[in-house]
Amino acid sequence: MTEGDRAGPWVVTGGAGAIGSVVVQELLARGGEVRVIDNLASGQRGNLPAPGSGRLSLTVADLKEPARYAAAFDGAHELWHLAANGDIRKGSEDPRLDLENGILATFAALEEARRHDVPRVIYSSSSVVYGFPTVLPTPESYGPLEPESLYAGAKLASEGLCSAFAHTYGLRVFLFRFANIVGPHMSRGVLFDLFEKLAKDPTRLEVLGDGRQAKSYLRTEDCVAGMLLLSERATEPVNIFNLGAADQISVREIAEKVVRAHGGTAKIEYAGGERGWVGDVPKQFLAIDRAVRLGWKPRWSSAEAIDRTIADLLRERGRGP
Amino acid sequence: MTEGDRAGPWVVTGGAGAIGSVVVQELLARGGEVRVIDNLASGQRGNLPAPGSGRLSLTVADLKEPARYAAAFDGAHELWHLAANGDIRKGSEDPRLDLENGILATFAALEEARRHDVPRVIYSSSSVVYGFPTVLPTPESYGPLEPESLYAGAKLASEGLCSAFAHTYGLRVFLFRFANIVGPHMSRGVLFDLFEKLAKDPTRLEVLGDGRQAKSYLRTEDCVAGMLLLSERATEPVNIFNLGAADQISVREIAEKVVRAHGGTAKIEYAGGERGWVGDVPKQFLAIDRAVRLGWKPRWSSAEAIDRTIADLLRERGRGP
Repeated sequence: MTEGDRAGPWVVTGGAGAIGSVVVQELLARGGEVRVIDNLASGQRGNLPAPGSGRLSLTVADLKEPARYAAAFDGAHELWHLAANGDIRKGSEDPRLDLENGILATFAALEEARRHDVPRVIYSSSSVVYGFPTVLPTPESYGPLEPESLYAGAKLASEGLCSAFAHTYGLRVFLFRFANIVGPHMSRGVLFDLFEKLAKDPTRLEVLGDGRQAKSYLRTEDCVAGMLLLSERATEPVNIFNLGAADQISVREIAEKVVRAHGGTAKIEYAGGERGWVGDVPKQFLAIDRAVRLGWKPRWSSAEAIDRTIADLLRERGRGP
Repeated sequence: MTEGDRAGPWVVTGGAGAIGSVVVQELLARGGEVRVIDNLASGQRGNLPAPGSGRLSLTVADLKEPARYAAAFDGAHELWHLAANGDIRKGSEDPRLDLENGILATFAALEEARRHDVPRVIYSSSSVVYGFPTVLPTPESYGPLEPESLYAGAKLASEGLCSAFAHTYGLRVFLFRFANIVGPHMSRGVLFDLFEKLAKDPTRLEVLGDGRQAKSYLRTEDCVAGMLLLSERATEPVNIFNLGAADQISVREIAEKVVRAHGGTAKIEYAGGERGWVGDVPKQFLAIDRAVRLGWKPRWSSAEAIDRTIADLLRERGRGP
C-alpha cells in the first residue's frame, strides 16, 4: 500500500482530542471522508475543523453505546481507535474508569469494525504497557509486561483484544506504543500541570517526585506522521511499534524550562520520592529502531518537543508571540 | 513464607473444575477453610469433596454478579482465580464469551479481593498469551505478546489487570502460564475430543490439523503442586511463571496412543493444515527454568501425562482397570 492508495472513509474515535484532531486533519488532507466519534469528555469540538466541507462528521457518543455510532462504520476502510480515559491518576481511585473507557471501549470499537468488515485498525497504545522495564531503551520485544496502573493494564488488555481480533477475524492491526506525547490542545500531562500550578501561584512550583524522572517526549506531529507512515508500510496481521523521541529529558529540566518561560522567578520545590504518583513510571525511554528501519524519524528531540509545546501553551493562554 | 504458614480462608473461583477441584483438595489438606465460587458451567459439584467437614463451602454464582458471592471474600487470605471460559474455539463465534467470562470475571474477582483486603491472588493464565512464538522453549520474558484467539486475548488482558491491581493496591499476584493441562474430570481438550469421536465411530478417528502440532502436556497434580510451591517462594509484587512439562509430544503420537487404548483398529485420518482450528497454536513448548530454579519439577513427561490421562478417561468411562 502506498500513500496514494490510502482512502477513506475513516472512523476516528477520540478524534476531537489533542492527538485525534491532528489525525483528522491529516486524513482530510488525503481527500477522503472522516467520521469522528468522541464523547467530548476530554476532546473538544473546537479542536476540529469546521464540518462545512461535508467530508467531516462528528458523532458525540460514548463507545459503550454502539447503537449511537454504528452507522459511522458503514463502508469505512480504517478505524483509528484513539479514545481512552486520559487521566491516568484518576484510574487508581476508580478502577472502573479504565475498564470502561479503555477495555470495554476498545472491545466495542473492534466489534463494530468486525461487523462492518473494516479491514484495518490503528490503535494508540502506550509505553506504559512495559511497566517498570529493566531494559532501556526498551524494545517492542521486551517482556514480561507488568503494567503499573489501571490505565496501563487497560492498554495491555486492549492490545490483547486487537491481536485476538486480527488473528481470529483477519483484520490487520497497528499498535503504537507512545512515549509522552506533547503538543497543542493538551489538557493533561506534566507541562499542563506545571502551567496550571504557576497560574495559581506564580511564586513557587511544586514538582511531583524528586525531579529525576526521565522520559522521552514526542511532538504530536511526529507521532501522527509515524502512525500514518508505519501503517502504510507494515504488513503483518499484528504490527507493534514504539513511537518516541530519540532521547530523554528529566522532569527537573522541564520544570526549569517552564519557570524560565514564566519569567524565571518561581521557586521549584520537589515533593520527593522516586515516582511522581502511584503508577508513575519514573524512567521511560523507547527503542525506536523498528520504526526507523521502516523510514520514520522524529523531527524533534525531547527538549525541542518540550520547548515547542511550552510556546503552544503560552500562546493558548494569550501570552505567546 | 513457608508451607506451614499458609493459612485460609481461601477463595477458589472455578473450584469445581478439573484443576480447581485439585486445588481445593490440596488447600483443605492444609487445614484451613475453602470457599468455592463456581457457576457450574463446566465445573461439576461431584468434583468437590462432600462439604460435611464444615471447612468447604460452594457458592453457585457467576463472577459477573458480585453481590451473590462477595461474602465469601470476608477475611480471606488468598484468592485462587481459576474460573474462565473453557471453550477456546467457541470464543471465535461469540467474542463476548471471553470478554465476560475472562476479562470481566477477572476484574470482578480482583475488585472483591481489593475491597476485602485479600493480600494474595493466584491466577491461571496460559501459554496462549505468547501467540505463535518464534522462540521455543518460550521464556516468560518473551515478547511481543500477540494472542491468537479471543480466549488468549482475555488471558493477556487478565494478566494486565492482575499486574495493575498489584502495583496500584499492594496485592501480591502470581500469574501461571499453563501448558496444556491434562488429568481426571476434563471435559475439553484434545484427549477428551478424541475419546468422544471414537465413542461415536470406533472405526475411524479424525484428527484436526496435520497431526504435527506439538505441545507440552502437564498433569493436573504437577500443575497444582507448582502453583502451591511457587506462590510460597516467589516474593515480587507480580510473579509470572510458565508451568509445563520438560518435553513435547505431537498430536499424531497422542492419536496413536488413543487408538491403541481402544484396541488399535480405528483408522486415523488427518483433516490437514498446520493448525487444528482458527486460533490454535501449533507449536507450544514452555521454558520452565524459572520455576525449576525455585525448586519445582514436574513428575511426569508429556507422554507420561498423556498415558495417565488416557487411563483416567478409560476409568471414567467404566473401561479401565
